[in-house]
Amino acid sequence: MTSEDIRNQVFTMGKQARAAAHALTTLTTEHKNDILLAMADGIVANESTILEANEKDLDAADELGLTDAMKDRLRLDSDRVAAIADGIREVAELHDPTRGIIKDWTRPNGIRLVKKRTPIGTIGIIFESRPNVTADAAALCFKTGNATILRGGKEAIHSNRAIATALDEGGKKAGLPDHAIQLIPFTDRESVQHMCEMDQWLDLIIPRGGAGLINAVVAMARMPVIKHYDGICHVYVDKAADLDMAEAITINSKCQKPSVCNALETLLIHKDVAAEFSPTIAETLSAKGVELRGDEEFRKLADLDTVIPASESDWTTEYLDLTLAVKIVDDLDSAIAHINEYGSHHTDSIVTGDEAAADKFLLEIDSACVFWNASTRFADGGEFGFGAEIGISTDKLHARGPMALEELCSYKYLAFGTGQVK
Amino acid sequence: MTSEDIRNQVFTMGKQARAAAHALTTLTTEHKNDILLAMADGIVANESTILEANEKDLDAADELGLTDAMKDRLRLDSDRVAAIADGIREVAELHDPTRGIIKDWTRPNGIRLVKKRTPIGTIGIIFESRPNVTADAAALCFKTGNATILRGGKEAIHSNRAIATALDEGGKKAGLPDHAIQLIPFTDRESVQHMCEMDQWLDLIIPRGGAGLINAVVAMARMPVIKHYDGICHVYVDKAADLDMAEAITINSKCQKPSVCNALETLLIHKDVAAEFSPTIAETLSAKGVELRGDEEFRKLADLDTVIPASESDWTTEYLDLTLAVKIVDDLDSAIAHINEYGSHHTDSIVTGDEAAADKFLLEIDSACVFWNASTRFADGGEFGFGAEIGISTDKLHARGPMALEELCSYKYLAFGTGQVK
Repeated sequence: MTSEDIRNQVFTMGKQARAAAHALTTLTTEHKNDILLAMADGIVANESTILEANEKDLDAADELGLTDAMKDRLRLDSDRVAAIADGIREVAELHDPTRGIIKDWTRPNGIRLVKKRTPIGTIGIIFESRPNVTADAAALCFKTGNATILRGGKEAIHSNRAIATALDEGGKKAGLPDHAIQLIPFTDRESVQHMCEMDQWLDLIIPRGGAGLINAVVAMARMPVIKHYDGICHVYVDKAADLDMAEAITINSKCQKPSVCNALETLLIHKDVAAEFSPTIAETLSAKGVELRGDEEFRKLADLDTVIPASESDWTTEYLDLTLAVKIVDDLDSAIAHINEYGSHHTDSIVTGDEAAADKFLLEIDSACVFWNASTRFADGGEFGFGAEIGISTDKLHARGPMALEELCSYKYLAFGTGQVK
Repeated sequence: MTSEDIRNQVFTMGKQARAAAHALTTLTTEHKNDILLAMADGIVANESTILEANEKDLDAADELGLTDAMKDRLRLDSDRVAAIADGIREVAELHDPTRGIIKDWTRPNGIRLVKKRTPIGTIGIIFESRPNVTADAAALCFKTGNATILRGGKEAIHSNRAIATALDEGGKKAGLPDHAIQLIPFTDRESVQHMCEMDQWLDLIIPRGGAGLINAVVAMARMPVIKHYDGICHVYVDKAADLDMAEAITINSKCQKPSVCNALETLLIHKDVAAEFSPTIAETLSAKGVELRGDEEFRKLADLDTVIPASESDWTTEYLDLTLAVKIVDDLDSAIAHINEYGSHHTDSIVTGDEAAADKFLLEIDSACVFWNASTRFADGGEFGFGAEIGISTDKLHARGPMALEELCSYKYLAFGTGQVK
């Protein structure tokens, strides 16, 4: 394909998505749910085709230099295909936010105003690696009445195509509108650039992947981008902390699932409790296989040879592994300053029995999720009761924190008049 | 100043704004209001300095090629300075949204979750011409706890500097935090570029001005941009319209204040009522000095020599003047298709007695404000009861339609636990 072919094809998909978005506004919730169930059936019916396609991707994985962890994320089997279908069925079960009324009021001139939730319109999802994102993202966007253009990575292109075809085949049986879910069938880098240019047809782009991908999209995109950057999450153990609780929260935040964005990366300890807390937590975490990187004060107090000296870059590193940076701070203000400066504004937790300290922390920490006496691992759409989520936004505009169905919506103002003029 | 000086100075202001944003989170509503009143007093106390500065801008206006209309927007006098101060006092009277609770619920594990409104943080405002924007935007952003970096146009630089100094001098008397309101004191174009680059220090940019300015900012900005594009607003006269009401709404939407973004620009008439409605509305509007540009069908029915043939570009033109494009449409679907394709997704109104037609229009028109039997002129923060507004957003993300105090806020999730772990 020439550059011009790529451009034309991406732009054509953009135009088609806009038309599909209009068709989607007219579907009832029941109809959308029927289509979702049919899409899930389509996945099940096409299991063998999907697994064959996945095999092709796995065959090319070594040549593309994929690590074992990446290959594991890429690999599908019968159970994983069933899980994809189940995920879509769960989305069908969720409440449809697009018909929701946010506010309803009447002005003195008699005009009734209704602020009503609506689909955003058209959403581009650019993602890497895991082929299940094709189905997850498509289902969430479809449920909220948005037309989607998906652009997956080269490493999963065969799997992604097979899944997209299965969704379309299944969905069509229940009346899925044409072009409501489109996968860009090739992976040339230029296709990302063209998506980023077509702000007349795409209302939003969500890049799901590493910082390199997100930065490239941010630099190119003319439309809004919702970013899911790193989670450099903190636990701050205040001087008024219950130290048993602090230990439990630290261990859970760090060890329960270290590979995810709401796992703990930096532990801050108030100097007044550092002498008591440091050796205990160092020993417990070490016993659990956690590599500790401490500032000078913590290393002294922990009194363990295995604590590595922390460097400046440790305060801004998302390890996603059994590694933890630890720092002793002078007071609550220092803890807040450290978190606001080095953190990623994702999730931070204070452990304290002092309500005034907690209030100050909750007010002044500039993060999506700010917790008092709870594990950072609760920063999650499921834990919040939102159902499925498309990610945890580290942005402050439109969607902050867990981004679920409501955050895939916009709104509009309806006015009901009886001929009023100004 | 060298390019490097400009860059350094803009970046320094960015860092300072971030620090100021943190200071702002700790101010009470009462304190913020006291500061706003002191800022208003600062404007009044510095009236003569502001008018002298404005005189300098007016002296340079001809050299800069400003039109009479632009000079009028630039010109300050004693009354206009008093109006600026009154505008700030009105903002002090408004409800403070930053302490608001959006949602408060408790999970089965006992964790109480609170979705709380917060300031966005730091906001860049890039504007042209009218110096009162300096004070208006600063007051709205300050009320919502945001630190502001203002960058005005060359044509008003002396006035803008004098107003910013007056706000600062006045505000400082009541404890305005350092750097909470900063004006870039020079107007080199590079300063806009540097603002657009510093996404670590600016959470949002709002360009207030023409499409050229907005497009340039969108192309450069790494942070979210909220756009206030044109208002290409429509009235659609349905076949079931009360034609007297349709006439009143059309005249009001077009003529009451044609220079604003919620004024009518294109009138659509259902073919079944076109023979009756067209000659009447053509005559009435012509008598009011409105230039009509009609499609062939309307020109035939209106039977007035003065109706000019409409060209394709008329459907996408925001005249902001006593000019109106008129088209006869076959049915409601054609009206919806025309508005969604040619409109600017700002404000569109249907006149009809048919509830099903209205429901369809309200559902399918993809605009910030969709009205039934009301003038488009009601699309306004004041008319909605929001108090002051910073503009009418034509975006769909974060803020759509009238952008008032709540839309200058973000939110965060607070969790209140008792030691919960996952």
